[in-house]
Amino acid sequence: MLSKHPLIQLVNKLSPVQLILVFYFLAVVISTILLALPVAHKDGVDVPLIDVLFTAVSAMSVTGLSTISIVDTFSTTGIILLALILQLGGVGVMAIGTFIWLLLGKKIGLKERRLIMTDQNQTTFEGMVRLIKQILLVILTIEFIGFIILGTYFLQYFPTAGEAYLNGFFGSISATTNGGFDITGESLIRFQDDYFVQFINMLLIIFGAIGYPVLVEVKQYLFSKTGNHQRFRFSLFTKVTTITFFALIVIGTIFITLFDFRHFFADKSWHEILFFSLFQSVTTRSGGLATMDVSQLTEQNHLFMSFLMFIGASPSSAGGGIRTTTFALVIIFLITFARGGNSIRLFRREVHEEDLLKAVTVTLMAIIFVYSSLLVLSIMEPFSLSALLFEVTSAFGTVGLSLGITSELTVLSKIILMILMFIGRVGIITFLLMFKKNKKSGKYHYPKERIIIG
Amino acid sequence: MLSKHPLIQLVNKLSPVQLILVFYFLAVVISTILLALPVAHKDGVDVPLIDVLFTAVSAMSVTGLSTISIVDTFSTTGIILLALILQLGGVGVMAIGTFIWLLLGKKIGLKERRLIMTDQNQTTFEGMVRLIKQILLVILTIEFIGFIILGTYFLQYFPTAGEAYLNGFFGSISATTNGGFDITGESLIRFQDDYFVQFINMLLIIFGAIGYPVLVEVKQYLFSKTGNHQRFRFSLFTKVTTITFFALIVIGTIFITLFDFRHFFADKSWHEILFFSLFQSVTTRSGGLATMDVSQLTEQNHLFMSFLMFIGASPSSAGGGIRTTTFALVIIFLITFARGGNSIRLFRREVHEEDLLKAVTVTLMAIIFVYSSLLVLSIMEPFSLSALLFEVTSAFGTVGLSLGITSELTVLSKIILMILMFIGRVGIITFLLMFKKNKKSGKYHYPKERIIIG
Ligand SMILES: [K+]
Ligand SMILES: [K+]
Repeated sequence: MLSKHPLIQLVNKLSPVQLILVFYFLAVVISTILLALPVAHKDGVDVPLIDVLFTAVSAMSVTGLSTISIVDTFSTTGIILLALILQLGGVGVMAIGTFIWLLLGKKIGLKERRLIMTDQNQTTFEGMVRLIKQILLVILTIEFIGFIILGTYFLQYFPTAGEAYLNGFFGSISATTNGGFDITGESLIRFQDDYFVQFINMLLIIFGAIGYPVLVEVKQYLFSKTGNHQRFRFSLFTKVTTITFFALIVIGTIFITLFDFRHFFADKSWHEILFFSLFQSVTTRSGGLATMDVSQLTEQNHLFMSFLMFIGASPSSAGGGIRTTTFALVIIFLITFARGGNSIRLFRREVHEEDLLKAVTVTLMAIIFVYSSLLVLSIMEPFSLSALLFEVTSAFGTVGLSLGITSELTVLSKIILMILMFIGRVGIITFLLMFKKNKKSGKYHYPKERIIIG
Repeated sequence: MLSKHPLIQLVNKLSPVQLILVFYFLAVVISTILLALPVAHKDGVDVPLIDVLFTAVSAMSVTGLSTISIVDTFSTTGIILLALILQLGGVGVMAIGTFIWLLLGKKIGLKERRLIMTDQNQTTFEGMVRLIKQILLVILTIEFIGFIILGTYFLQYFPTAGEAYLNGFFGSISATTNGGFDITGESLIRFQDDYFVQFINMLLIIFGAIGYPVLVEVKQYLFSKTGNHQRFRFSLFTKVTTITFFALIVIGTIFITLFDFRHFFADKSWHEILFFSLFQSVTTRSGGLATMDVSQLTEQNHLFMSFLMFIGASPSSAGGGIRTTTFALVIIFLITFARGGNSIRLFRREVHEEDLLKAVTVTLMAIIFVYSSLLVLSIMEPFSLSALLFEVTSAFGTVGLSLGITSELTVLSKIILMILMFIGRVGIITFLLMFKKNKKSGKYHYPKERIIIG
């Protein structure tokens, strides 16, 4: 029925990558128009088009970098529109990542389809719509619980229940989609002593950043019949991405603490240090919210956090960057190759060579993109190299942290950041597919298992 | 006869990498002792041991970074000792690079041995000694010609013939070995209007940096019987490294010009701009001599030159860095993989997959080394990130350019730079061989041709 519609037929003719591009540009154009409407603005506020465009791209890519103050610019209508764009962006990123995974995975016929509980149509337009619906359901459930908890808890912070629940609503969406925008005007700084708010926000950020397939598998595991638990096998992807994800959070917390131990943390108590470091470590996965002004940290911490943001979140999540699995495979590849080994085995599964090559390609490409962007920004801007690197990796990792220079950048730099947010959003593998000549026919001889890259 | 000597037998038992390490540390220890002798110093000059050690490592790795002023510290004896260490270092780097190439190449039995005109003993200790002799002969010939030309030309610059020829002697060695040290106290700045001196220095630097196999092949080509020229086939390695080498010089010249066109070059004539840019581009291959104070260039130029120095020179040359061939293969790999291709063909030869993997490994490892070093230096030092990156890549590329901060660094930073100079000198592949578990038996099915990596 639906598939007979000429528009659907046209869409089905496009390659998946062309489809994503068309979606993305349509979404950005519509978002820009919506956010440029007078009703979206506070009275008397006039915003240059480049900044509206930047906000739309930043929201669609759930980055959270902003050249304007959200709370001073947008009316309640504008804020709700922004929340909707974040929602679309967050789900879009997850859907696209998962979709590409399925697309690549279909060739070797592994267990992805069982995992995602869908049929062969997954790689058609209708299959994609169904996938988006499923992801939307998961996200909305998480967001709704976050909204109720935060909104109710915020009653003590705000004069009216309306304000409390509006903040809970926007806060839950911004955290879960890893949007990273705030309507407080200072991210989560006002909650820097409220560990409950921080804890809930970290949970929501992690749910958004850890990857849709992981959420599905955990759900399957939890709701499978008792006794069946032991027979349930998590996929290699879930194991690798989850371990890397939490390892990065732990390593990030430790080093963020160390790099500022005698500086920003010098006069703080142990639990303040723990929560500052932990939250800022979690947020570099792709969250973008912050419980402090990160420009107060040392330059070495900025350099280190740039590295964390460059890695970003899990594939098929609301986050960006080279992705946790890419990073894990590159490290394993380097260690194996340096020691003279050939094949890489993880959890009794052999990693596919093509995945290794992909991981390496994604990482090197990302370094080239980041370096080139940095070079152009260093020509255009008067800011220090570390501040520019922080900005560039924040955009590529769709994190949204900034040392406060975003609004002062030139138009060319803003355009470069928008391109980085786009590449970071769709992922380098998807980005590269645009230049791919022709699909190879899959000839695979080994019992290997795929891992999502980029 | 000689091979019966117990010391030789012991040395023959060591793995090639252990041999290189033993050589290197012995050479550094002896160099440090020699340079610490009172007779090597000017009267009343007292130098801390860490700085003597740094100078020895810098000279042995033909880097040229220096924490002290050579001309103010060392006596004529000291300067001649330094020249000898540079000589040992320059030839050592070439020999080691060529040796590793032969070692790896032997397994697939290609035409390296014919090229280098040596027999199977190449990979034994005696073969290595013979190789060093051959390389020494080539280098000494080039240096002698450079010495005569520069020394004679310098008669117009210096009051006595002795001074002129001492400067010609040291200058020719420093340029040809890519040592990059100077006894003028200001590199080649006093010759910034003398294009003849610059031209000779660029030629000598290129001879030292373009790779020993290239020199041998060119010599074979030139001295082969007439009519035979057309039948002579340059190796894939020579083609790739030479094209990349000169491409980098051209690209470097263009961008160095562009990045400072409205700054340092604003009041310069076209030939001044050309020679400043060209010389500084050539010197980033690994030379380290400079015709200007490079700290006067813009930050974007420093960032760009850091990239050039990171690449460095050709393998089996007196230079360091990831090497030209590594860079070329990585770029070709990325383009091929992004376009969905499988194998890489260059000049009607297929590039070996293992070489591609090596190139990728070397590049990623080098990025990790540089980033980690930068992180530690950013903790220890008050200087800007771009100045530190410049220093770090200069050490890794064994280039020796500096924005003038080397002497002010802390001991830990000096140690890190020494490690980088060592890794840059022996190359990452050699460095990695230290951690290799066991040698793989070579099973190769295709008519492929090796390219030296790292
Ligand atoms: K974000
Ligand atoms: K040098």
